[in-house]
Amino acid sequence: MGKSVTHSQKIIKYKDSVFQKLDDEVAVEYPLTIVVDGEEFATMVCTPTHLDEMVIGFLASEGLIRVSDEIKSLTIDESRGFAYVELATKRSISKDFYSKRFIGSCCGKSRQFYFYNDMRTAKTVTNQTRVTVDQCFHLMKRLQESSSDFQATGGIHNAALCTPSELVVMRSDIGRHNTLDKIYGYCLQHRLSLADKVIAFSGRVSSEVLLKVSKIGIGIILSKSAPTTLALELARDLGIAVVGFIRDSTLNVYTHSEKIIDVDGECFPE
Amino acid sequence: MGKSVTHSQKIIKYKDSVFQKLDDEVAVEYPLTIVVDGEEFATMVCTPTHLDEMVIGFLASEGLIRVSDEIKSLTIDESRGFAYVELATKRSISKDFYSKRFIGSCCGKSRQFYFYNDMRTAKTVTNQTRVTVDQCFHLMKRLQESSSDFQATGGIHNAALCTPSELVVMRSDIGRHNTLDKIYGYCLQHRLSLADKVIAFSGRVSSEVLLKVSKIGIGIILSKSAPTTLALELARDLGIAVVGFIRDSTLNVYTHSEKIIDVDGECFPE
Repeated sequence: MGKSVTHSQKIIKYKDSVFQKLDDEVAVEYPLTIVVDGEEFATMVCTPTHLDEMVIGFLASEGLIRVSDEIKSLTIDESRGFAYVELATKRSISKDFYSKRFIGSCCGKSRQFYFYNDMRTAKTVTNQTRVTVDQCFHLMKRLQESSSDFQATGGIHNAALCTPSELVVMRSDIGRHNTLDKIYGYCLQHRLSLADKVIAFSGRVSSEVLLKVSKIGIGIILSKSAPTTLALELARDLGIAVVGFIRDSTLNVYTHSEKIIDVDGECFPE
Repeated sequence: MGKSVTHSQKIIKYKDSVFQKLDDEVAVEYPLTIVVDGEEFATMVCTPTHLDEMVIGFLASEGLIRVSDEIKSLTIDESRGFAYVELATKRSISKDFYSKRFIGSCCGKSRQFYFYNDMRTAKTVTNQTRVTVDQCFHLMKRLQESSSDFQATGGIHNAALCTPSELVVMRSDIGRHNTLDKIYGYCLQHRLSLADKVIAFSGRVSSEVLLKVSKIGIGIILSKSAPTTLALELARDLGIAVVGFIRDSTLNVYTHSEKIIDVDGECFPE
């Protein structure tokens, strides 16, 4: 992709009680409108890298496609900020349907799926991969090392698809969820097996992030940040281990602790 | 509001090479669906505090109302997560209209308004308030002190409406933009004069955040974090000074530096 991730800007820095003019790198924020079979579907504000992966991952996450072959063509007009998608099989796309809030008839589990569409696409993860705490520390360290290019600008999120021992692919974006759409698109484009994969993530684990992880089909999310209550409810139901606040040599296991083991191969007894 | 901001959760902490079960506070994530005159308008995922302010601010930000009197009634069903709004004057609410992307006919300034609706509601700020660098440091320090209640959970954003010398009101939310909707709602409910006000903000200054600031009618945003390129383009056009990376005794002035003055009352000469 030809677009820049950061742009140099003239800023005025105040330091040691003095104003000084200098150049600084600022994260590019780029609006991309996705048009599906001639109909405007959504506008995403993103970091303009791996736009094809992001579009494919987003459409899969929204349930429009399941495999990348269901896209007949994908053309990105970078200068105007449009992605034109032609599906192999036409589908009726009702915005009302895709944004309609779903409230279950009982006060039970389905209450959490506040968008109807998520109920269709979020799936219980059967992936049984486990990781050791040392692997958690290692992967989070690798995520931070790999993302150093972007740290100058601040406020960039990173997600990486990993085996228990190493990063496979990392994607960055100013939008937390876009990083996961890019990862999802990469998996679909390369038909990757997810059997032994986990996600390492730089940001907070919100319900939206958790749902994306379930849609990709991954059973463990590692984060240096905090989860929310709604994300944890969903994680319990969908079979996903949430590990947060991974810093130095401490971490918190929030859900499905049977997937996180210590050096002796033992998990915490429930 | 009766809802909790955090919930206690059983977690397993790994520390000093040992797993240990303990209780931890996790930020509540709460979906609220806004129904306007019987039509579902939007679902916001938020921290369940000051929901009335958030709804009022959001509707103003979306251009449905300008003053709070234009709302005939507002009823919040907290247990089910619905806000029912009746407008004093019925309006036709087309989702297509409100989410439609706007692309100007020329390649000029209007390109930045990627949602048509923002073009209607974002306004050039005429507010001439100026602040000293010491006031910037002081307000950011006060924001951080005031938000200490929530820091335990991580990942909570804070925004405060301030005079140059002191915080007037602070609002917190897991959603960056919700904090500003709450502030906007507060201003409308209390018919506050914005003539001498600035915003102090904990998070990144994205285009969405910048547009909210312009809609409220504030001419200075102070942040401890980074802005994006698109936010800075909008800030230049809309007359808003963006001050970022406010930490200890350093800060960056990105736009409209004439509004930021040093102890002698001098700004940086352009």
